[in-house]
Amino acid sequence: MADDVLDQLAAVLPPGALVVDRDVVDAYRRDRADTVRPGWPLALVRATCTDDVQQVLRLASEHRIPVVPRGAGSGLSGGATATEGCLLLSLDALRDIEIDGPAMLAVVGAGVLNGDLKRAAREHGLWYPPDPSSFEFCSIGGNLATNAGGLCCVKYGVTTDYVLGCDVVLADGTLLRLGGRTIKDVAGYDLKRLFVGSEGTLGVITRATVRLRPAPAPFSTMVATFADVESAGRAVSAIVAAWRPAGLELMDRTTVRAVEAFKPRGLDVDAGATLLAQCDAGAASVDEMAAIEAICQGEGATYVAVTDDPDEGEMFMQARREAFPAFFDRGTTLIEDVGVPIPRIAELVGGVERIAEQHRTTIATVGHAGDGNLHPLITFDPKDADAVVRAEAAFAAVVELALSLGGTLTGEHGVGTVKAPFLAAQLGPEVLEVTRRIKDALDPLGILNPGKMFG
Amino acid sequence: MADDVLDQLAAVLPPGALVVDRDVVDAYRRDRADTVRPGWPLALVRATCTDDVQQVLRLASEHRIPVVPRGAGSGLSGGATATEGCLLLSLDALRDIEIDGPAMLAVVGAGVLNGDLKRAAREHGLWYPPDPSSFEFCSIGGNLATNAGGLCCVKYGVTTDYVLGCDVVLADGTLLRLGGRTIKDVAGYDLKRLFVGSEGTLGVITRATVRLRPAPAPFSTMVATFADVESAGRAVSAIVAAWRPAGLELMDRTTVRAVEAFKPRGLDVDAGATLLAQCDAGAASVDEMAAIEAICQGEGATYVAVTDDPDEGEMFMQARREAFPAFFDRGTTLIEDVGVPIPRIAELVGGVERIAEQHRTTIATVGHAGDGNLHPLITFDPKDADAVVRAEAAFAAVVELALSLGGTLTGEHGVGTVKAPFLAAQLGPEVLEVTRRIKDALDPLGILNPGKMFG
Ligand SMILES: Cc1cc2nc3c(=O)[nH]c(=O)nc-3n(C[C@H](O)[C@H](O)[C@H](O)COP(=O)(O)OP(=O)(O)OC[C@H]3O[C@@H](n4cnc5c(N)ncnc54)[C@H](O)[C@@H]3O)c2cc1C
Ligand SMILES: Cc1cc2nc3c(=O)[nH]c(=O)nc-3n(C[C@H](O)[C@H](O)[C@H](O)COP(=O)(O)OP(=O)(O)OC[C@H]3O[C@@H](n4cnc5c(N)ncnc54)[C@H](O)[C@@H]3O)c2cc1C
Repeated sequence: MADDVLDQLAAVLPPGALVVDRDVVDAYRRDRADTVRPGWPLALVRATCTDDVQQVLRLASEHRIPVVPRGAGSGLSGGATATEGCLLLSLDALRDIEIDGPAMLAVVGAGVLNGDLKRAAREHGLWYPPDPSSFEFCSIGGNLATNAGGLCCVKYGVTTDYVLGCDVVLADGTLLRLGGRTIKDVAGYDLKRLFVGSEGTLGVITRATVRLRPAPAPFSTMVATFADVESAGRAVSAIVAAWRPAGLELMDRTTVRAVEAFKPRGLDVDAGATLLAQCDAGAASVDEMAAIEAICQGEGATYVAVTDDPDEGEMFMQARREAFPAFFDRGTTLIEDVGVPIPRIAELVGGVERIAEQHRTTIATVGHAGDGNLHPLITFDPKDADAVVRAEAAFAAVVELALSLGGTLTGEHGVGTVKAPFLAAQLGPEVLEVTRRIKDALDPLGILNPGKMFG
Repeated sequence: MADDVLDQLAAVLPPGALVVDRDVVDAYRRDRADTVRPGWPLALVRATCTDDVQQVLRLASEHRIPVVPRGAGSGLSGGATATEGCLLLSLDALRDIEIDGPAMLAVVGAGVLNGDLKRAAREHGLWYPPDPSSFEFCSIGGNLATNAGGLCCVKYGVTTDYVLGCDVVLADGTLLRLGGRTIKDVAGYDLKRLFVGSEGTLGVITRATVRLRPAPAPFSTMVATFADVESAGRAVSAIVAAWRPAGLELMDRTTVRAVEAFKPRGLDVDAGATLLAQCDAGAASVDEMAAIEAICQGEGATYVAVTDDPDEGEMFMQARREAFPAFFDRGTTLIEDVGVPIPRIAELVGGVERIAEQHRTTIATVGHAGDGNLHPLITFDPKDADAVVRAEAAFAAVVELALSLGGTLTGEHGVGTVKAPFLAAQLGPEVLEVTRRIKDALDPLGILNPGKMFG
């Protein structure tokens, strides 16, 4: 049967789109969740257009073969990991970018990298705000599929806030063209926002129409250090209650040490916690920054400095963005993505420290503190069986802690494979049942990314 | 059977919740779409809690009785209009408001008026931005069900951008608790945003958790007049391409004359079009306003004035908000709610003028120009049979025009009864089919607001 399918695929796809070479396929089998073991796909398809995607899904439906959609493979939850015998459907070749300046939007292929879209928009004096730390190596299709967040989201919102429309191919090959170039549109159900965040389980996104904004005023940047993460957490809650910084990021001591070891930039490796804040309110930034500084000082900051030099500010944000890569070559990393209501931030970071002690494992905490979305990073030696067990127990304990604080197990990375076992605990039976009904309504054969999200 | 159901309802509902008195029921049968004829419901239920809603839906499912959910009845599309023999389920008594200041959110009953939420937030120094002109007499439940927009949405976004969670009762009485108090949460599908904008056809919203923001800086307000609507439309496109006004509203001459007749405020009744813009960027507002003024002048504005007095500014915005009421006692009104991509605004307003001439009917144009969302208002004498036919033809022609410009038939009011005949033309067969699949998955018996949205 497998050969049959491959023959049929070869017949309908353009030359080069169907890939069975194991070396090439191997490079596409994983995302960045390094604890997830990929399977071997039947084949990799690198779609060149929406029609290729429709052909693949029609055949996959006919033969009941699972399809795993893949963007740039930067995901942190094992969402794009190949499963055994699947068709791995990569959208990475869909790279068209149209900037419609007057309409303040872009229409892009799913494979366009977030950073390439940003640059294309900038040429028109425009800006695409959502900025995952991975923006140079993640795709817009993947950003939609995970509803990606980022650093400026505390002021500018997440991916779903920018989606005006998308083209989606359903499991049976039907093409849906959702939304369009109109800013406000409430005709019918908000289906585009149902596909946003659906992690490849409801349809394959081939194209997106996203809002752009006028370029922001230059950023000014504050670096503040604290004796401990809890006082930094309190400062965060106080700042967002009254001000609108365009970035508010937290790194604990372990994180700062790792990023300084990765690439030294003069951050204080002895501070208990470092807070980075950015303002882009133009003439109003001065007041805003002064207020944010005062709040930090009020919470006992040990050091506060502000720079209006955008390059210097960018250097600090860059250090923050490299927090994950800084750990990638230090053993294996389990990356959490928990979120809590804003007043619970200090409790979350305090609780994580206790969990690290209790499970005798290293947890660095870094993240988008202004949104209450933090990434405790659990690093361990994968060859030490006991360390693996302790790391996994710590992972579960952090999820449990976040849920007990009224929070979520994932604020932006998605459920994927890594967090699938915990989803039911967060959603509860009623919501899970409705989730399945929606899944069944759109993918009755269950061929789209099976095993992901639901486990 | 009807008596049977009423007895069963009486048995499970608290005293007073079940209403059959025809005078009381009559006051609940309509929304503000005055061309839609309501039917007589079997009974009105004024729910006092979520459990009442569950009881009503369980019995309605058992007996296959249609349920029409209703908020404050301010809708403009006939979405809440009673149909013959339905259970009219009013949420207007669910008025609890909890402001969680530290978490920057509010948890409110579906019946809470938008204006009451705004006032409660203000007591905590916080702000709930979405501001339909009807904010003093529309409910948050209705706002969610229609994904309501408003005046400040051009900068601050629409209802869906503020929804963190909601409680929804499904057709079979199941209670779903969606989302929560966490700002970022991507665990599972974004179901809350599927219910937002579903116009009572997928579930009944009993409670909402919405984001609040720090109160904005005081508004400064510009009034500019133009010789014609097309040059005003061009100014709008140019403004939003570079600036972020907190309001950008357009009124044509017919609208200004009506609002001045309704309540004189000194607007120029001879100008072809009037543009109102607001800025709330604090210290940065001065530059922003100066740039907006310059753009208006560049497009040939005949008069431009700016006031920093918030009360004076509010007076002009108030005039704009009264545009619909100003027409309500001048015969019957068909209220359009079309949206187009920003560069097509001038074409839309020009085209509407031609449609008015062609169909010999009066069309006033007013709306949220900064988002490309406009409300051509077709007024006519309902006793003049020929005028009715011409008005209806003009209504269809405006919808067609908007769609031909790549736009939408509804930017914020919803499809309801009035626009149901046109929905298929906008969505196309594939999207409509998927819409029905979702509807069937959540409401298999089709008891929720039948006839609305789909027609
Ligand atoms: C160093 C680093 C920093 C990061 N920082 C952030 C951050 O700040 N914020 C954040 O949100 N994330 C962050 N991420 C995670 C990741 O970059 C995002 O989840 C991103 O959105 C994934 O995009 P991708 O194209 O790489 O998707 P992939 O990893 O290829 O896929 C992700 C998921 O989406 C599905 N998918 C991908 N494309 C499509 C499509 N076209 N149609 C349907 N389904 C599709 C896949 O099946 C999978 O479930 C970071 C990752 C790294 C490695
Ligand atoms: C003068 C005037 C100005 C207006 N200006 C604006 C404006 O600027 N922007 C704008 O968007 N709208 C505007 N509107 C329209 C209207 O106010 C909005 O659509 C509002 O959101 C309706 O809220 P409501 O509580 O009155 O809902 P209703 O009219 O009672 O119902 C509206 C729809 O929502 C459904 N519904 C209501 N409550 C629930 C619930 N709890 N659960 C499930 N379904 C429910 C109903 O079935 C119906 O389909 C205006 C109306 C008037 C009269």
